[in-house]
Amino acid sequence: MNTGVIKSRVRAVSRELKRRGINCLIITKRANVTYTTGFLGDDSWAMIVGGRSFLVTDSRYTEQAVKECPVSAIIERHEPLVAAAAKIIKKYKSAENISVESSVSLAEFGQIKKAIKTKVAAASGVIENIRSIKDEGEISAIKTAASIAAKALAQTLPVIKQGMTESELAGILDFQIRKLGSMNSFETIVAFGPNASIAHHQPTLRKLGKNDTILIDFGAKYKGYCSDITRCFIIGKPNSFYRKVYDVVEKAQAAAIKMVKAGVTIKEVDSAAREFIRQSDLPVYGHGTGHGLGIEIHENPFLKPETKGVFQAGQIVTIEPGIYMPGRLGVRIEDDVLVTETGCEILTRNCPHSPLLQNNN
Amino acid sequence: MNTGVIKSRVRAVSRELKRRGINCLIITKRANVTYTTGFLGDDSWAMIVGGRSFLVTDSRYTEQAVKECPVSAIIERHEPLVAAAAKIIKKYKSAENISVESSVSLAEFGQIKKAIKTKVAAASGVIENIRSIKDEGEISAIKTAASIAAKALAQTLPVIKQGMTESELAGILDFQIRKLGSMNSFETIVAFGPNASIAHHQPTLRKLGKNDTILIDFGAKYKGYCSDITRCFIIGKPNSFYRKVYDVVEKAQAAAIKMVKAGVTIKEVDSAAREFIRQSDLPVYGHGTGHGLGIEIHENPFLKPETKGVFQAGQIVTIEPGIYMPGRLGVRIEDDVLVTETGCEILTRNCPHSPLLQNNN
Repeated sequence: MNTGVIKSRVRAVSRELKRRGINCLIITKRANVTYTTGFLGDDSWAMIVGGRSFLVTDSRYTEQAVKECPVSAIIERHEPLVAAAAKIIKKYKSAENISVESSVSLAEFGQIKKAIKTKVAAASGVIENIRSIKDEGEISAIKTAASIAAKALAQTLPVIKQGMTESELAGILDFQIRKLGSMNSFETIVAFGPNASIAHHQPTLRKLGKNDTILIDFGAKYKGYCSDITRCFIIGKPNSFYRKVYDVVEKAQAAAIKMVKAGVTIKEVDSAAREFIRQSDLPVYGHGTGHGLGIEIHENPFLKPETKGVFQAGQIVTIEPGIYMPGRLGVRIEDDVLVTETGCEILTRNCPHSPLLQNNN
Repeated sequence: MNTGVIKSRVRAVSRELKRRGINCLIITKRANVTYTTGFLGDDSWAMIVGGRSFLVTDSRYTEQAVKECPVSAIIERHEPLVAAAAKIIKKYKSAENISVESSVSLAEFGQIKKAIKTKVAAASGVIENIRSIKDEGEISAIKTAASIAAKALAQTLPVIKQGMTESELAGILDFQIRKLGSMNSFETIVAFGPNASIAHHQPTLRKLGKNDTILIDFGAKYKGYCSDITRCFIIGKPNSFYRKVYDVVEKAQAAAIKMVKAGVTIKEVDSAAREFIRQSDLPVYGHGTGHGLGIEIHENPFLKPETKGVFQAGQIVTIEPGIYMPGRLGVRIEDDVLVTETGCEILTRNCPHSPLLQNNN
C-alpha cells in the first residue's frame, strides 16, 4: 500500500478524533484496520495514539504486515489482543481519552476496560464515514474488481448448458475469477427458476432446465476492494411474464440510477426504484435498494427508506432493486455506481448486461 | 433440520439459562442462531423466551426460514432487529432477566438497552459451550464435509502441473468442491515455496516451479458444518531440508493426536506438538495447535497454551502444528479429530495424505 495514502488516512482519522476529543482510538473492525494500516490479514487491531499508528498482530501475520503496512509500527503480540493494546497505552502515557470502536463485541469491550484500568468510551462511525468517500486508488481498485467480475462472467456464459447444476455454474464462475488472479468478494449466488425468489439463495444441485431462468449475484476482489453485480438470464423459450417482470426491474433500476448525484437524499433514490415497481402492480422488494461497497461488501451508505443524509461525491454504491414471487420467480439487477457532482458513473457497464435470451441447449 | 434435534438444543439452552437465572436470551451470533433454530441465513437474531424459541428475520429470508426452522416461531420484521426484538419482549410480559450474547457489538447492545427499557445483562458462552459437544447428526455432517474435501483434493492433485498459479490451483480445488454440491468452509489457501511461511497466505499469480513445494489449507461445508484440512506436497526434485522439516511436523502432529482423549487437559496436547518441534531445534509456530470446528470454522475449544480445561467426548478439533521459516519454507499438517472416551478418531484420514513426492511435470 502506498505510504502517502495511508499517511493521509491516518491524518484524516486523527483530525476526526481531535474533533471528538479522542486521543487514542482502538480499531477492532477488520475493514477499518485495513483502511488505516494497509494490512489485509485477520485477528489484528490497529491503534491511533496521538496521531501515531500501530498494528497489533501475531506471528502468523508479521511477515505479511511488514509487506503491507508502510506507516504503522508493527507490534507482534505474544499475549491476547486486549493485553497487547493495554501495553501500548501504558507505554504512551499521553494516551488519554481512550475510545474503542463501537463495533467491538461487548465481551471484548469489557476485557479492554478491565485491562486498561482507565475510562474507556465507545466511538461510532469514525472510520466508516471517512471510508465511505473513496480516494483515487480505491476507485481504481473497485473499477478493476468490476472488470474482473465482468470478464469472469463473460467467460462463463458460453459454457452454460441444460443439465448443469447451480453449484456447478457457481463453481465455473468462481474458477474464472480465480484464474484472473482474484477471489470472490462474497459467496456467489446462483439460483435457477423459482429459487431466485430467495434473495440470498445458496447454490444447490438443482439442474438447469431446457426453458429456465438464471440469477447470478457475484463479485470479485482487487487489492482488498469489492465489486458486486447481479445479472439474470433466460435459457430456451422466452417466458413472457418473466420478461415483463425483468423489464420493470430494469426500468426501476434506471429510475434510481438517473437520480444518483452528490447532494441528493439517499431515501429519494431508494424510493424512486420502489415507486416504479409499486406503480407496476408488482410486489416491492423488502431489502435495501443498494449499499456502499469498498473494503467491505456492505458498507456506508445504506440505501434504505429510513436512511438520513445525502449522497457525496466519491461514494460508490450498488443499485439493485428486485421483484420476488415465491414459488414463481425472482429478478434482481445490480450495478455499482460512483457518485459524482453531476450524477454518477456506472462502473459495471461492461458486465454482460442480462441478455434475456441465451440459447445454449 | 430435524425437529427433535432443534427441540433438544432449545431444551439444553433453556436448562443452562435457568441455571444462570436468565429468562430471555437474545441470540445475535450467526452460528448460535443457526444452532438454536436451524436457520442458515444471515442478518437475523434468535430469542429464547421462557423456553420458547423465535427467529427474527426479514423478507429476504422468510421463505428460507420456513424451510429450515421446524420449531421456532418465525417473525418477519419490518423494523430494525433491535426494535423487532423489543416488540417480542413487550408481548411476552414473562420476559424478565433479559440477557444478550456478549458477542453482540457494543453499539447494538446500547441500542437494545435503549429499546427494551429494562435492565439487560450480557451472557458469555451459553451456546458456545453446548455447541462444542457435537451430537450424532453434527458428527455425521462434519464427516461428510471432510469426505467432500478429501474427494475434491484427490480430484485436484492429478492436474497440478508446473506453470500453474497459486490462484488457479485454488480455483480448481474450489471448483471440485462446488461440483460436489458443497462450498468452501473458508477461503482456500494455496502457497507455493516460501509463500507457505505466511500461515494465512492468499493465493497469488506466483507460478509453480519445476522443483517446488505446495501448501494447501482448505475445507468444505456440508449442511452448514465445516471441515478444515492442510496438506503439503513437493513437486519435482526432493528437497532434503524440506523433507526433514515435513517429517518433524508430521511427528509433532502424531504426538499431539496420540494424546487427545476425553479428560486430558487441552494445554497438554498443545504442548506435546510444540515440545516435539522445540526439541528438533526448529522454530515453534506462533499459532494455536488447533481449534474446535462445527458451524464455525473456528470455535471452542481453542488449543492454546493458555487454554484451561479438558477435552470432552464429542468435541471435534483440528490438530495443525507447523514450522515457518520466512523466505525459506512453511509446512503445516492439519487433520480433524473427534474426541472420544478412549482417544480420538481421525475424520480426515481419507484425504490424500501429503505424499512428499508428486511428479506431474
